[in-house]
Order: sequence, then C-alpha cells, then structure tokens
Amino acid sequence: MTKLGAHVQHIERLFKQVKIIYDQNQSPFDGVCHVAKLCIEKISRSLKRVQSIANGKEYWVLQNDQNITRPYLPTLLIESSDEFERLWGVVVRSINPSTHVIELDEDTINNVIYTSVMSFALTYDLWKPKSRKTPGTYFEVVLGSIMSRMLPLHTRLKHIILPGQAENVSTDIVFQPNGEGPSLVIPAKITTRERIVQPFAHQRILDSVFGVGQYKSILMCVSETQRDEDTGVNDICVPGTIRLFQTHLARMYGIYYLDPPNRYLQDDITSIITVGSVASFLSRDVVNFI
Amino acid sequence: MTKLGAHVQHIERLFKQVKIIYDQNQSPFDGVCHVAKLCIEKISRSLKRVQSIANGKEYWVLQNDQNITRPYLPTLLIESSDEFERLWGVVVRSINPSTHVIELDEDTINNVIYTSVMSFALTYDLWKPKSRKTPGTYFEVVLGSIMSRMLPLHTRLKHIILPGQAENVSTDIVFQPNGEGPSLVIPAKITTRERIVQPFAHQRILDSVFGVGQYKSILMCVSETQRDEDTGVNDICVPGTIRLFQTHLARMYGIYYLDPPNRYLQDDITSIITVGSVASFLSRDVVNFI
Repeated sequence: MTKLGAHVQHIERLFKQVKIIYDQNQSPFDGVCHVAKLCIEKISRSLKRVQSIANGKEYWVLQNDQNITRPYLPTLLIESSDEFERLWGVVVRSINPSTHVIELDEDTINNVIYTSVMSFALTYDLWKPKSRKTPGTYFEVVLGSIMSRMLPLHTRLKHIILPGQAENVSTDIVFQPNGEGPSLVIPAKITTRERIVQPFAHQRILDSVFGVGQYKSILMCVSETQRDEDTGVNDICVPGTIRLFQTHLARMYGIYYLDPPNRYLQDDITSIITVGSVASFLSRDVVNFI
Repeated sequence: MTKLGAHVQHIERLFKQVKIIYDQNQSPFDGVCHVAKLCIEKISRSLKRVQSIANGKEYWVLQNDQNITRPYLPTLLIESSDEFERLWGVVVRSINPSTHVIELDEDTINNVIYTSVMSFALTYDLWKPKSRKTPGTYFEVVLGSIMSRMLPLHTRLKHIILPGQAENVSTDIVFQPNGEGPSLVIPAKITTRERIVQPFAHQRILDSVFGVGQYKSILMCVSETQRDEDTGVNDICVPGTIRLFQTHLARMYGIYYLDPPNRYLQDDITSIITVGSVASFLSRDVVNFI
C-alpha cells in the first residue's frame, strides 16, 4: 500500500481490525488514525466536487463516475492526512482521565472527529455505497474509543440488561459506573431522520424499569443534512417532533452534533433540551452527567 | 384496456383516483375492486413461481425477468378476478353500520382483504419496485374505507391535533367519535420490522397528552414475513421487543394480522396483548374498543 494507492478493500480490512479491537473493549486509536489517513488521501484525488448552500452554510458533495457522496462541510474537514495525524495525536494526548474531559479547544476536537468520521463515510459513499450502515458503526467506534479513555471508572457496554425481561435494550454505547451513580446511554447516529423516536423510546423504557435518573441518554450525531436526488443539500430538522418527544415521550439529557443544525440552536428547542457541539460535550458538559 | 393487457401505468392511474376519493373521506369500494381485479389478472399470467416454507406455512414468490416479489400465502389469495369481484361485493354488503361489524365468516373477510392488498403489492413488486411505499398506502385505503362504513358515527382523520403543541401525531387512520367516547388509532403496516416502536411511542404520547384510555391504538398488519436475498422466506418476529414495549413503553390495545405469525399467537404474547386475524377484529373485536 502506497500513499497514492490504498484500495478501498484495504481500508475495509483495516476497519474490520479496528472494530475487533473496539469490541474487545479497547480504544483502537492508532487504527482509527490509520484508516482516516487513508480515507483522507483517497478522497483528495481528482474527484468532481460540487458546492451547495444549506441554511447559510457551504457544503460540498464529491462525485465519481458511479456515485455521489453525502454532503460535507469543508470548513470542518482537515484536507492533509499528515496534519490530521498530528492533530489526532493532540486530541488523544489531551484526554484527561482524571478530569474526564478533553482539555483542548473545541474547534480542534470537532474538526478531528468530523474528519475521521466523514472521510470514512465519503470513501464508502464513493466506493462501497452498499455498505450503508458501516459509516455509522465507525462513528460509534471513534466516539466510544475516545469516551472510554475519558471515563476510566466506567465500563463500556452495548446492551442494558433489564431485570425480569428476556429482551435487552440495545443502544450504541453505554457507560456504566464501576461504583454508584448514573449510567450514560449514547446513541450515535450520522443523522437521525425518522429514527429519532428510538432513543426517546429507549429512555422512556429505562425510566420505567430503573426509575428516572439512573440512565441518561445523550444523543450524538454528525449532522442533519441530506443530499437531495441530485447534488443539492437540505437540512432535515423536526423541531416539533423533538419538542413533542421531549415533553411527552421521555426526557433526553442532551443532543450534540459535530455540525449542529441552526434550527436546533433556537430558543424553542434549547429551552427544553441541551443542544451543542460534540466538542462542547467532550471538553465540558460530560461531567454534568456522570 | 382489455382483460389480458392492463398496463401497470393504468393500474397506477386508477390507484391515484382511488386515493383522491379516499382522501375526500369517502370509501372508494368500486375503485378498490377494479384495481384489485386488474392486479389479480396481471399476476396470474405466465410468471415463474417459487415455493418456500416458513414456520410450517407454504409461501410463494413470483418472478419476472427483472424482479422477485415479496412472499404471499397462496391459500389466502383468490386467483380468479371474477370470484374476487363477487366476494368483494359480499364483504361490502355484509358491513352493518348499526352493529359496527362485518357480518360474515372470518375466512371470506380475510381472504378478500388479503387478495386486494397482496395482488396490488405483488404487481408493484414486479413492475413498479421503486414505489416501495405505495402498497402500504393501498392497505390503509382498503382498511380505512371498510372501517368508515362500519363506524358511521365516527369521523376518519389522518392526524391527531395536540392542544398546545405545534406538532400533530400523524397516524395512518384515526376514528374519532362524533359524540363522547374513545378514539381508535389504527396504524396499518404491511410488515412492522424495526418500525414497531412508532405505534407504541405514539400511544405513549397520546396517553401523556390526553390521559390513558382516550386514544386506543390497534395495530393492523398483513404479515411479518420477509423474503431473503433469494426466494426464501423468513418470519421476522420480535416477541421480546413487543413484551418490553407493551410493559414499559405503552399499552397497545391489540395487534391484528391478515396472516398472523405463529410466534405471536403463543401464550407469552397473547397473555399481555390481544393478537388475532384482521377478520376477527372487523367481525367481532372492534365493538370492544369503541
């Protein structure tokens, strides 16, 4: 494998190795960095780029002969794989397991995580478009790995066992304290769309089984943008649904985005649920929930 | 249009007319019958049929050069369009608006509704496979039309307006009494799969906003069968999920299938939620809920 010629099959193999390590409850930081570097290089070469504006932000989509990618925000994407490697190292070294936060400016945290997840998703959109769920899994792996290092007194799980029920609640990431205290439930989604009902329903079930406050759901997303049939970009926001679910289905503890939709930063939403950047959660808010 | 040569475009146009009449709060019985007859004729001709067994029941899938259909139960499908027309007339004439039930044997009711919905779905699978949502809409139209005639003292709606909320609850079919009494909420799905969370979440919200018992959700489905990658058939049942949702998310009032999965007829499910055939609802149980 050379810097110019990594095949997507090679990236896929590396991703699978990263996933195996992650599933052994470790944090595969080197593997994530390696995969992201290859993806950054892969999408940097001679692809057609088309610009589109959504809600005042400039997005791009990439095209090859067969496929068009999802939209991405070029201002968040680190274009040099060497620069990404350097900053990834900075982020990992800034995780403080004693204070449970990443001690670093929010922009660097957000750009590095966005670049790792989005370069992978764009690569899959172009060369593995049928593996629709894999970019979401990768986002989960990146976020879960970082948070594991931040929360050394917690155990990372994928399921919550319900006493007296045959069924588990399958969430993406759960951090359960080794001692007393609430657990964090972290659904990680690239975008939510109609699936937003799921984390609210899970929170409701957890409140019913364990009592309110024992499990705290915090939704982590990349964005709510979606490409239309062509290369245009739309923000798919459902503020009325979020208000309704938050008031009458269950209380979520926060929603954090790498690319927060402007609509969800308005008062009618933020007055009933915390909305912020993923970096603001990782560098500050997380301690409010543990 | 001849009996031998109805184009799928013609069926599509007729369906759109049926939908327009339905959306004007009428019951387009003649249009539904006409569409179903054309679909029965269309799928009856020289198509490859493949048999597959799932949970002791014999299913078939149809194939043409391009596409493979969803599985269907040949014992429920009326193969002659003339016989269908005759029995459709019997079903419509057996609706008693005074007793609010269809006064007819369950097999005839189930077979007629199954044939109308499934012949349309099979036609779309073969010749309009990209219109994935249309068969579900057609099921809603057939069921909503029949129930409207059964419940002349109710008004049929598509949304429930929540006082003090900008958002409505969008369900497939709602029957609101013109006087006092509970409303029926009828989510109509060809299969539920991961979408089963939605009707439970809606019921929970309605309980929270209006109080328990004001809105009663009754889920109506065709089956839970799914074709695998090839021509095999699987029953996709989630008994643990249903038990969990029914106990800790919201209480649904019943689940009725045209082709009930055997798994959901076992004691651990039927002891916490009524499960039966759509015909048992339309000919008997409906009066328990209004």
